[in-house]
Amino acid sequence: MFRKLSTFEEAKKIIQKHFDAKPLGVEEIPLIEAYNRILAEDVTATLDVPPFNRSTVDGYAVKAEDTFGADENKPIILELCGTVNVGEPPKLHVKNGKTAEIVTGAPIPEGADAVVMTENTERVDNRIYIYSAVVKDENVMKAGSDIKKGETVIRKGQSLGPREIGALAALGHSKVKVYKIPQVAVLSTGAEVTAPGKPLPPGKIYDINAYSISAAITESGGKPVFLGVLPDDAAEVEKAIKKALASADIVITSGGVSVGPKDVIPKTLEKLGKPGLIVCGIAIKPGKPTTVAAVDGKLVFALPGHPTSALLIFHLLVRPIIEGKAGRKTTETVKVKASASTRMFPARGRRTFVMVKLTGDEAKGLIAEPVPTGLSGAITTLLKADGFVEITENQQFIDTGEEVTVHLFKKG
Amino acid sequence: MFRKLSTFEEAKKIIQKHFDAKPLGVEEIPLIEAYNRILAEDVTATLDVPPFNRSTVDGYAVKAEDTFGADENKPIILELCGTVNVGEPPKLHVKNGKTAEIVTGAPIPEGADAVVMTENTERVDNRIYIYSAVVKDENVMKAGSDIKKGETVIRKGQSLGPREIGALAALGHSKVKVYKIPQVAVLSTGAEVTAPGKPLPPGKIYDINAYSISAAITESGGKPVFLGVLPDDAAEVEKAIKKALASADIVITSGGVSVGPKDVIPKTLEKLGKPGLIVCGIAIKPGKPTTVAAVDGKLVFALPGHPTSALLIFHLLVRPIIEGKAGRKTTETVKVKASASTRMFPARGRRTFVMVKLTGDEAKGLIAEPVPTGLSGAITTLLKADGFVEITENQQFIDTGEEVTVHLFKKG
Repeated sequence: MFRKLSTFEEAKKIIQKHFDAKPLGVEEIPLIEAYNRILAEDVTATLDVPPFNRSTVDGYAVKAEDTFGADENKPIILELCGTVNVGEPPKLHVKNGKTAEIVTGAPIPEGADAVVMTENTERVDNRIYIYSAVVKDENVMKAGSDIKKGETVIRKGQSLGPREIGALAALGHSKVKVYKIPQVAVLSTGAEVTAPGKPLPPGKIYDINAYSISAAITESGGKPVFLGVLPDDAAEVEKAIKKALASADIVITSGGVSVGPKDVIPKTLEKLGKPGLIVCGIAIKPGKPTTVAAVDGKLVFALPGHPTSALLIFHLLVRPIIEGKAGRKTTETVKVKASASTRMFPARGRRTFVMVKLTGDEAKGLIAEPVPTGLSGAITTLLKADGFVEITENQQFIDTGEEVTVHLFKKG
Repeated sequence: MFRKLSTFEEAKKIIQKHFDAKPLGVEEIPLIEAYNRILAEDVTATLDVPPFNRSTVDGYAVKAEDTFGADENKPIILELCGTVNVGEPPKLHVKNGKTAEIVTGAPIPEGADAVVMTENTERVDNRIYIYSAVVKDENVMKAGSDIKKGETVIRKGQSLGPREIGALAALGHSKVKVYKIPQVAVLSTGAEVTAPGKPLPPGKIYDINAYSISAAITESGGKPVFLGVLPDDAAEVEKAIKKALASADIVITSGGVSVGPKDVIPKTLEKLGKPGLIVCGIAIKPGKPTTVAAVDGKLVFALPGHPTSALLIFHLLVRPIIEGKAGRKTTETVKVKASASTRMFPARGRRTFVMVKLTGDEAKGLIAEPVPTGLSGAITTLLKADGFVEITENQQFIDTGEEVTVHLFKKG
């Protein structure tokens, strides 16, 4: 079987070449359920917000010119011609010398162009004493001053938070077009792997990856389709992956990719369809056995069985693919500068990712201390690590005290 | 009616005094659905991970002492005594001079204490040529080396991400105890407010707050119970809030809290039960009409009707309450330093929050430029703002060029 390792950069390019990372499709959902979804169309205002001139205070609607010269010692007296209620079109017209009672949010009646606050008035029967002059538009929120009809308010690709959802509601949308969520099937293989919740027979271990990877899929904006543990049998695995490919956009397996006699995944992937295997191992550490197949425009990622390796490779290679398919901007890893606590060596000829814990503080300088991985099988390596340091193939080593860039893991 | 404004600090204290912000309760859910939930108990390992000594390579299990002195020019020959499969307890015992074939992940058989990698061996019939010595425990992942039985692996209060969920799976948990999600009812009031999706009669505006606040509740770890727009009628509002209080832990209304003649919310809240109104207006800008009632250990927040004010007050006062009830750590607002682009004045005697947009860059220095709110009714104010600057009651103003702390809004 074809077994030439790809470099890290080659692997990323090959995957991109075989996968259309454009968003999957569009669906219309209720606006009230749209939190954290991605807008799939530019939204243009079909109405002014507010739709009419509104009073921003409780008071009296006037022609501003009628109040000129009014002050505390010399009020101007206007005649009350009616009341404007909130939520209904005013039935009156304010003529010179007249005024209408108005409340916050009510439409400014015809003829009026400003509002005098109640505090600056006094009412005696039908006569309103105005103790303070107002200028045109004072205490008036003009139609379209928040959003103008025809204005593009939110652009395609925007993640919808409270503020965007509020703006869509203001425009009268009760539904919204968002990108579909990619379905990502997850399964684990291996004769030694047992599903959590079941008794653990001797010689077996509990499945970790189907769980940790499913959570990572959710975090990336995908929907995990959890298939659990498959028997380590070529025919069963082939059947399950084929079935998963029929509905899911991406399939992720873990385990079964080393060169041991029972490793069935690469052999199975080759049989699934064209073009088949596109990456057969990557010159990285950890994650060397990572295998990727492309089948009829869909991708199958066969991640290593070691939990730390599997999550790291997911983070480096799979997450950006899911984000693209979901219409999301690729999450930029948060990076911090730190000083290496010790020498860090790369694996010869392989891009190496060293899990590190940060100590010290930002003021005095952070220190990046490698987490003793011991063996990449450990899930606790990841629990203890704050992020990783990347060492390229060309670097000999990172020296003690050297400045390094730490890529932080998103905190769960 | 009682109408003395609370200061901002007083309001926070009064709310805390009347509300038990301890987590609501505990529920057991499937681990596979636990992403972003909060662990409600310390989890202690009831087994070693891995549960047995495992081989980390494909090769031959040996007594390390038998390989001492082996090198490329002088192999040591051991006799093959069987094969250890992955996923089952070994049925053989490796005696001196013997070796067993083993694959990655398989249990180390009795008698053996190290594994020689296949690459460093050669097989001729039943004789295995060992070309490289190994030391005790080489290529062996010891039982409990990842997680030791009895060790507390994850603590109560931890948010569950991919790594924590992986660790729980490793321990065999298919279910997990997490804090219940607080139910937060949301309703809007006001004769002028119309539900999005319906035609907009003259004089009316679409409801914004029930939507933006619902999204903000989700973002804070609560579950919004969306009640939509209520008629501006005291009896209807009272009935709806009473019903909401029966099932929800917190009720949020918006609108109806100014001093206009139709403002029914404060009057209604006073009738609901003891102790009733605890905050009747706060000396802040925006958000002065904010009203809070405590009823039988539950809280009703009556937020202002203006969308920007409502979301800001949610952010300042309601979010921490929901997070506490959900068992979450209070989200620390991300803060950045910037230079004021212009003078910023507080409202007299009120804690003032000025919405600002950031320009410039971190290298050369950020500039905080107030977003022309014009009128706090605008939802677009929030869309344009990156965060806010807080001006305390005692500050006269912030001068142009002065360094300010900008509290960033969480990006949706």
